[in-house]
Amino acid sequence: MKQFISVEDVPGVPQIADIALDYKKNPFKDKGLGENKTLGMIFLNPSLRTRLSTQVAARNLGMEVVVFNIDKEGWALEMNDGVVMNGSTTEHVKEAAAVMGQYFDIMAIRTFPGLKDKEEDYTEKYINQFIKYAGKPIVSLESATLHPLQSLTDVITIRERWNQPRKPKVVMTWAPHVRALPQAVPNSFAQWMNAWGEVDFVITHPEGYELDPKFSGKAPIIHNQKEALEGADFVYVKNWSSYKDYGKITCTDQSWMVTNETLKDTNNASVMHCLPVRRNVVIADEVLDGPQSIVIQEAGNRTWAAQAVLSEILKAR
Amino acid sequence: MKQFISVEDVPGVPQIADIALDYKKNPFKDKGLGENKTLGMIFLNPSLRTRLSTQVAARNLGMEVVVFNIDKEGWALEMNDGVVMNGSTTEHVKEAAAVMGQYFDIMAIRTFPGLKDKEEDYTEKYINQFIKYAGKPIVSLESATLHPLQSLTDVITIRERWNQPRKPKVVMTWAPHVRALPQAVPNSFAQWMNAWGEVDFVITHPEGYELDPKFSGKAPIIHNQKEALEGADFVYVKNWSSYKDYGKITCTDQSWMVTNETLKDTNNASVMHCLPVRRNVVIADEVLDGPQSIVIQEAGNRTWAAQAVLSEILKAR
Amino acid sequence: MKQFISVEDVPGVPQIADIALDYKKNPFKDKGLGENKTLGMIFLNPSLRTRLSTQVAARNLGMEVVVFNIDKEGWALEMNDGVVMNGSTTEHVKEAAAVMGQYFDIMAIRTFPGLKDKEEDYTEKYINQFIKYAGKPIVSLESATLHPLQSLTDVITIRERWNQPRKPKVVMTWAPHVRALPQAVPNSFAQWMNAWGEVDFVITHPEGYELDPKFSGKAPIIHNQKEALEGADFVYVKNWSSYKDYGKITCTDQSWMVTNETLKDTNNASVMHCLPVRRNVVIADEVLDGPQSIVIQEAGNRTWAAQAVLSEILKAR
Repeated sequence: MKQFISVEDVPGVPQIADIALDYKKNPFKDKGLGENKTLGMIFLNPSLRTRLSTQVAARNLGMEVVVFNIDKEGWALEMNDGVVMNGSTTEHVKEAAAVMGQYFDIMAIRTFPGLKDKEEDYTEKYINQFIKYAGKPIVSLESATLHPLQSLTDVITIRERWNQPRKPKVVMTWAPHVRALPQAVPNSFAQWMNAWGEVDFVITHPEGYELDPKFSGKAPIIHNQKEALEGADFVYVKNWSSYKDYGKITCTDQSWMVTNETLKDTNNASVMHCLPVRRNVVIADEVLDGPQSIVIQEAGNRTWAAQAVLSEILKAR
Repeated sequence: MKQFISVEDVPGVPQIADIALDYKKNPFKDKGLGENKTLGMIFLNPSLRTRLSTQVAARNLGMEVVVFNIDKEGWALEMNDGVVMNGSTTEHVKEAAAVMGQYFDIMAIRTFPGLKDKEEDYTEKYINQFIKYAGKPIVSLESATLHPLQSLTDVITIRERWNQPRKPKVVMTWAPHVRALPQAVPNSFAQWMNAWGEVDFVITHPEGYELDPKFSGKAPIIHNQKEALEGADFVYVKNWSSYKDYGKITCTDQSWMVTNETLKDTNNASVMHCLPVRRNVVIADEVLDGPQSIVIQEAGNRTWAAQAVLSEILKAR
Repeated sequence: MKQFISVEDVPGVPQIADIALDYKKNPFKDKGLGENKTLGMIFLNPSLRTRLSTQVAARNLGMEVVVFNIDKEGWALEMNDGVVMNGSTTEHVKEAAAVMGQYFDIMAIRTFPGLKDKEEDYTEKYINQFIKYAGKPIVSLESATLHPLQSLTDVITIRERWNQPRKPKVVMTWAPHVRALPQAVPNSFAQWMNAWGEVDFVITHPEGYELDPKFSGKAPIIHNQKEALEGADFVYVKNWSSYKDYGKITCTDQSWMVTNETLKDTNNASVMHCLPVRRNVVIADEVLDGPQSIVIQEAGNRTWAAQAVLSEILKAR
């Protein structure tokens, strides 16, 4: 594997999922693989799960890890070409990425969308600059439009829990939030579910919240949450801001919050969320504290997803 | 040992002190003990000694260490139950603690008191939420009301310097400060001195600065600093804000600052302070720069206290 | 080697350069040298290259590394003696340095000039306080007036590229900038070029930008950039603020920016810069993106410079 930016970079969804689940059983089996290799983890915005799990995963493989919050410990990067840099940016990404590529064997980058300019966000300007200039394999720790480490985690979480011969019904439901959030997690989840193919995948959200069809693909979109959730085996909850009316909050209908009532007609569905989750806004306490929530197990699986990705990149070098 | 929150968690004060002093002689003797174990160090407020010494101690035991300044690198945690999280907090401690518990084998947490609500602070709401939800052993890097790593350090510092058959006289004296500080260090020092029992322990402070009797116990409280310090072998200097008039500064009398004059009637006492110390406010330059100050040796011992604690927790798992 | 603050600390410029270039060929040959030794990296201001390359260098030698952004993760240090600390500083450098010296085997410090008080900056008050109180070898990660890790890097970069019998002509040229920058990099580069002696070293800058003669030494100073650059083999580009009119910007003449036109009469010179560089202010895109720029190779060499320095200090202990 040469990089990890989207599902298109993996040899196959079931294959990479199995590698991850193997590491869950035996975290230290490849401790020599990363010897004398350094992972640089570069954050342009804050992170908890992604940072901590990836750091642990890299150490499980014997890699050195350097964490660098460039926004806080460094300075503002210039992302545009041809600019006269007499303003607030101190260094161009051309230099910053290329220089970091001199120090690290793999670079993991967390970027984010501005949610103002759809074109800029959806061309993945930031992470693509790193890919272009770093000269080393890049692992996305979430980019403007995708969050593949989260989605791989979600695949392995469903995979390890599902042991019936039929395909599970997986429903991704929009839920309310007080801030305008990226579409990265839902885009990515849809992309991976579609690529995986071993699930019946359905999306439900209010009208106007359609995702970029490049990611939602052929998944049925149902605007009635109740109808969509019927018989669901897994309910994947997530807020996102509008793609159509880009970056805007066009629905604040609290009836979309996931409660026990919401889950009534599911097949005793397991409830997933990438976290952090705002309680009693996105999902009610009764669900998060109840037996159907698997959000902690899901977050724990982040380590094995990251370890699978790093190991495949190390093996390819 | 299952956790380290207060003196009540240790098998015995002399026992744990001896383990620490053994590590001081031979820091790397247990380098295999922490193999493939990760310590997560979570800071909700800044720290110098505690962070650096605990990080070094964990590495001496072969542990991986992940430092996470959640206040700066992450986001604000919600600590209250049942809240509709539509405000400034991004994640509930229920999730944050449980998730971090998935990644770490031991979690060390630094919390702090608000100094507004005595009840909230003295029920140790913050660290108790981590204990409740992390599912892994918790080490206090200072909590709202106690600082046990500091106190264990203080025990070993006294223990290694005192070689006479009689008990040393140890006097903890309040000193002035310009800001309202927690009672954690003096509470904890009193708790450990009382539990240790191998010292004659006396407390001196202005009226109105009585500590919670749960911690000061049966230690004599003398409001006349001069009288209290007579014949002292160790003078433990610390400011704290009022427990009675909670979180307030009710005395600014600079005559409580520790100077050479203050120490005149002591038994050439060694002067201790947990640091950081505001010079010429809490303790005069002449004392800190003079032969009686042992504050640097004391700070150096932080490593061995942390190493003893981590090793005992690792051995119990 | 006992410390690394300036060129005066090294056994000899070619010797230390060769040690660095040996590590470039074989980064892990001394992985046992730093076993059970900890490097404390203390930042009083931000850093990218210096931090990342030194961290990687120390790990290549098997050292533990603790990075501490004291300005962000800690608190403000008091640097003046005899002060009544009732203001904004929380801890005196006397304690902070001495305490960190208890935890670390080598301490690397990044300080900076205020650019207000020449006397204070040029007596290197900050780093000298650390040298005085830490009790452990100090490595400068850039101080108020010098940046020796950068200069050693520059020496090895020139050394590895130059394979002709004659001495290369190395010209350091001032270039414009929008902010008032320290003189540390140009002072240090001049000091090392002069000490090295294996180059023909020339300085060019507008009038009023003369460096402290202690550092520029006998190097010819030419105020006409075009004339100075004639036949240059290496062009070292850097902005600095005035030393004479201390800390001020007295020239904003954009004709000093380095373009392809500027380089026309050089000997197809290699262009160097310590980075970060403001594009199209200090150096034009056409140069940085063209074949004469060696700034990325130069930045990559930071690792080997740091590794040489750390190894020499470790060997001397």
